Amino acid sequence: MKVPAPLVAQQRVLMGPGPSPVPPSVLAALALPTIGHLDPEFLRVMDEVRSMLQTIAGARSGRATAISATGSAGMETCLVNLLERGDRALVVRAGVFGTRMAEVARRAGAEVDTFDVPWGESFDVADLRAFAADRSYRIVACVHAETSTGVLQPLEGLRELADDLGALLVVDAVTSLGGVPVEVTEQGIDALYSGTQKCLSCPPGLSPVVLSDAALERVAARTTPVQSWYLDLSLIEAYWGGERAYHHTAPINMLFGLHEALRLCLEEGLEARYARHARMARGLWAGLEALDLAPRVVPERRLPQLTTVAVPDGVDEAALRRRLLNEFDLELGGGLGPMKGTTWRIGLMGAGATERHVHLCLDALAKVLERDARAATEAAARALAE
Amino acid sequence: MKVPAPLVAQQRVLMGPGPSPVPPSVLAALALPTIGHLDPEFLRVMDEVRSMLQTIAGARSGRATAISATGSAGMETCLVNLLERGDRALVVRAGVFGTRMAEVARRAGAEVDTFDVPWGESFDVADLRAFAADRSYRIVACVHAETSTGVLQPLEGLRELADDLGALLVVDAVTSLGGVPVEVTEQGIDALYSGTQKCLSCPPGLSPVVLSDAALERVAARTTPVQSWYLDLSLIEAYWGGERAYHHTAPINMLFGLHEALRLCLEEGLEARYARHARMARGLWAGLEALDLAPRVVPERRLPQLTTVAVPDGVDEAALRRRLLNEFDLELGGGLGPMKGTTWRIGLMGAGATERHVHLCLDALAKVLERDARAATEAAARALAE
Repeated sequence: MKVPAPLVAQQRVLMGPGPSPVPPSVLAALALPTIGHLDPEFLRVMDEVRSMLQTIAGARSGRATAISATGSAGMETCLVNLLERGDRALVVRAGVFGTRMAEVARRAGAEVDTFDVPWGESFDVADLRAFAADRSYRIVACVHAETSTGVLQPLEGLRELADDLGALLVVDAVTSLGGVPVEVTEQGIDALYSGTQKCLSCPPGLSPVVLSDAALERVAARTTPVQSWYLDLSLIEAYWGGERAYHHTAPINMLFGLHEALRLCLEEGLEARYARHARMARGLWAGLEALDLAPRVVPERRLPQLTTVAVPDGVDEAALRRRLLNEFDLELGGGLGPMKGTTWRIGLMGAGATERHVHLCLDALAKVLERDARAATEAAARALAE
Repeated sequence: MKVPAPLVAQQRVLMGPGPSPVPPSVLAALALPTIGHLDPEFLRVMDEVRSMLQTIAGARSGRATAISATGSAGMETCLVNLLERGDRALVVRAGVFGTRMAEVARRAGAEVDTFDVPWGESFDVADLRAFAADRSYRIVACVHAETSTGVLQPLEGLRELADDLGALLVVDAVTSLGGVPVEVTEQGIDALYSGTQKCLSCPPGLSPVVLSDAALERVAARTTPVQSWYLDLSLIEAYWGGERAYHHTAPINMLFGLHEALRLCLEEGLEARYARHARMARGLWAGLEALDLAPRVVPERRLPQLTTVAVPDGVDEAALRRRLLNEFDLELGGGLGPMKGTTWRIGLMGAGATERHVHLCLDALAKVLERDARAATEAAARALAE
């Protein structure tokens, strides 16, 4: 075959639902010389990644790990380790990722009850409690930040409900970790998974997973093997933990990148990072309003790091996103499922949550929609200054 | 918490069983700016990766993909997609990786018959045929290059045996791909998986998987869902293939790196690459003989890219490897399973199969073992010149 040409850098402005922009020092860490997966220096990197993850996830006990695959594998890790065939699972479906959790739990052999929430809305714990009635469950699972709808689901009350149902609480924090507060211990989360390519601003390829002590006990008490050998947390822990027993060859360079990305989170400070995401979102929302573009989610449930916007009537949204990509190097996301063709998803995640990104996006949207760019950027500037 | 310091480059000479040394242009490709997983530029990268993989694996039909996880996940992908609960699998166990295949197949609900071969030896197809008797199987599975023992298993005759058993032929090519000839179509392989961190000289994190048309038909004809959602090849193919349906966020930068690594293979030329691996191995083996160090595998079954060596009596092998790492920045591998404590594994893989690596390793081994370095490097030089 004809050998393809070497790749050339593409400078995209990443404002979709992830991957988010990756800081130069994270890219530089990715390109550090590869070392062995049992090299003492690498084991130290793993230890530091583990403790930084625990800090960022607010886990004062339990165990954090980075699974050697992307966020959806983190979801599968939590579910296949906590569930055994025939276990009952209660899963909230309010978008693509809750729906995926139910599917993955079913494939793990669980009896899954699904609590359906209209896309773009959050749910009340009281309603979920009423739905669960007096059944008992092995797990209750929901998504903290639904990447498909842009909804931030409050987690208050879920710990108590899980306790009453005899269940472990599983939370998808793929899009929330690093962008809004996630507090594993305080919120009583038993199993949390995330991705690297959202508010952590590392390329995709790893999935942070945090388990509480109760979840670890459940894994240890299993009577059947985990159906996935690759995602078997007991085997993974034997490598990440004290024994350092070979399980699989860890993605060395990806972990170098994640180490740097987590370091940048902690250097900025978590409170400052959350405040930055919130402020940029206020700027974007003010500008969108000036452009007469309507967010799909009510303000009090809207994710600062991911805004879903209704596409104006008569606009071919895919064609418009192609123009943004080709003319402005700007990537926005399209809608999924029932929101396909009618929704844009605008990300302000991690290193992408900056004033420059807010203005660039508003300016480009105004131009392709032929609306007033100046009004939008001035409205954003006022909101950003507040 | 105290924020850890940024990582500092460690310059190791990687001569264990993988990861192998990564060329600078592959590290540079890893650090290209991240772009979206549905960006047309990225889809082009995927297409090129796919066709380069097919060429390197000698697959004139079927489908190649890079699974978004490491080699062991490639193994799991092949097994969980081809096997349904209750299917019969015939698995050859001649080391760690054959043993792992049997375990993964069992966790997929298969009835597994294992054909055991002493570690460090290969098997005759006639013996496997006799073992199989007249039973029928869904798959016959074996390891082409056993990373734990250093044995190269000839694949001749396995296609015919698989046909007679009504089985698909599954081959582990983690350590063989790119180092010795792998010919999916000619050798009649139905499912092959590999890793990036061996003879392809890319960091770990992806697993090339190639399926024949017959294997793709088997996947399409399943009557039950694949137990793993993340590794479900039909869903993965909908993203890699024509529809470009979102499944999970691909590890963008890892695929940039793999693209460059595959390009380097093809630029060198596969025949030249195999010849280079073979020549370097002859140099190493001559030098080891001069050092009175005995390979564990007979020459005609010895992997050029991975040599297992008996540790001399009375030598604390782990302590010696620590010295090599600390004093020479040289990583060799220790033995696994029954070879633990008694075996070293010396890799000459991909970018690590060079004269410099041969001499460096022999020189360092001679020094820490207090043997004649000059005799060893001269013997190696003679063999390299042949």
